[in-house]
Amino acid sequence: MPKLILLRHGQSDWNEKNLFTGWVDVKLSELGHTEAKRAGTLLKESGLKPQILYTSELSRAIQTANIALDEADRLWIPTKRSWRLNERHYGALQGKDKAATLAEYGPEQFQLWRRSFDVPPPPIADDDKWSQYNDERYQDIPKDILPKTESLKLVIDRLLPYYNSDIVPDLKAGKTVLIAAHGNSLRALVKHLDGISDDDIAALNIPTGIPLVYDLDDNLKPTKAAEYLDPEAAAAGAAAVANQGKK
Amino acid sequence: MPKLILLRHGQSDWNEKNLFTGWVDVKLSELGHTEAKRAGTLLKESGLKPQILYTSELSRAIQTANIALDEADRLWIPTKRSWRLNERHYGALQGKDKAATLAEYGPEQFQLWRRSFDVPPPPIADDDKWSQYNDERYQDIPKDILPKTESLKLVIDRLLPYYNSDIVPDLKAGKTVLIAAHGNSLRALVKHLDGISDDDIAALNIPTGIPLVYDLDDNLKPTKAAEYLDPEAAAAGAAAVANQGKK
Repeated sequence: MPKLILLRHGQSDWNEKNLFTGWVDVKLSELGHTEAKRAGTLLKESGLKPQILYTSELSRAIQTANIALDEADRLWIPTKRSWRLNERHYGALQGKDKAATLAEYGPEQFQLWRRSFDVPPPPIADDDKWSQYNDERYQDIPKDILPKTESLKLVIDRLLPYYNSDIVPDLKAGKTVLIAAHGNSLRALVKHLDGISDDDIAALNIPTGIPLVYDLDDNLKPTKAAEYLDPEAAAAGAAAVANQGKK
Repeated sequence: MPKLILLRHGQSDWNEKNLFTGWVDVKLSELGHTEAKRAGTLLKESGLKPQILYTSELSRAIQTANIALDEADRLWIPTKRSWRLNERHYGALQGKDKAATLAEYGPEQFQLWRRSFDVPPPPIADDDKWSQYNDERYQDIPKDILPKTESLKLVIDRLLPYYNSDIVPDLKAGKTVLIAAHGNSLRALVKHLDGISDDDIAALNIPTGIPLVYDLDDNLKPTKAAEYLDPEAAAAGAAAVANQGKK
């Protein structure tokens, strides 16, 4: 039976500073390292044995996977990376303080950008300090599909083709697949797996550093509700995410 | 112009304890972590930009690459792993103390096992504590080609097909390729690249944690002698390797 394990990266330097990050390649904070190690311990104790790792192309997700798999003694599994697993591109908000943005635009607009299904923030300028337009790692992506801002809907649109082309065949082969990624790319995947409506996805928050495990059937539908390896910590973590920006 | 960067992993827990390691999956010591970080700093300062990473399937090489690429801000490059880049399988010597082995068998036999071109140590038993016969990560390798002991010659025999099938195409495409591996798998590669004779390779020692850079022509021949990114430290490190076991 295929298993899919989703792991959201631990706290980054910019989570700590309460800045919108998106595609800016910020690394894990010290707490983030600790969270990633804890994720590895949870994996090891669970007896789950990931057989292949998928990550985004952002350092904080890759660091999280590297630390967790080291702790779980499974560094050796094959690894694939794709920008299609990246965090949502936050457009012109990238690099901006969340609390200041909330104060400037008000709670309604703020929540719309953060949690609406299909309203992206304003696009980022190509010459913006926090643009990825000239980032070497994305040079193979045609410029017309390289995101300059994204809603959750746009994340789903660029993520699902990769899920179907690359990850699904591994799952169909019965493998245990680990995906280390981000709050919004994982929300996109959970929405797809659990068939959550465009409205209801707004209320779903994924905590950092706690593996979420799906048992799938042959059609890759969940056989039961996905389970966090540490449900109590996951509930507390999801609540913390929901309150982000309100400091 | 293609570039090939070879990186031998830093000190492992068993290097520190002076045990024959081979395919036993020992992790980096604290010094090994420091060496890996220094390798990343050297890479970053050199301006070299690895575009793809190859590693063995052994944790100490993967850890070294992960730490170095984190330091060099290039965690995102694609990664491929193969057992064909693993350290030489040390046969029945795996897990044994080097100094005790030297004392038991004498300097001639000891040096023959360590540095002869084609004399492998006695094979390891399948039920030996330090055998990899049932290691999950090698389950896809047909049992008749899974090594139970290796000479340097046998390492070359299993490494070159992978070099030719996977690494050469990346080099032919003009890429900068980083290989994080082991003393003997890298000696095998250096022998091939530099056309070193079966006799002369015995005297070649590769220091830990210092990137060795090859500039290659279109036929993947070195255009000049390969250079360590820190030549002084490399000379000292190579001398230390030559003296191993003599404590």
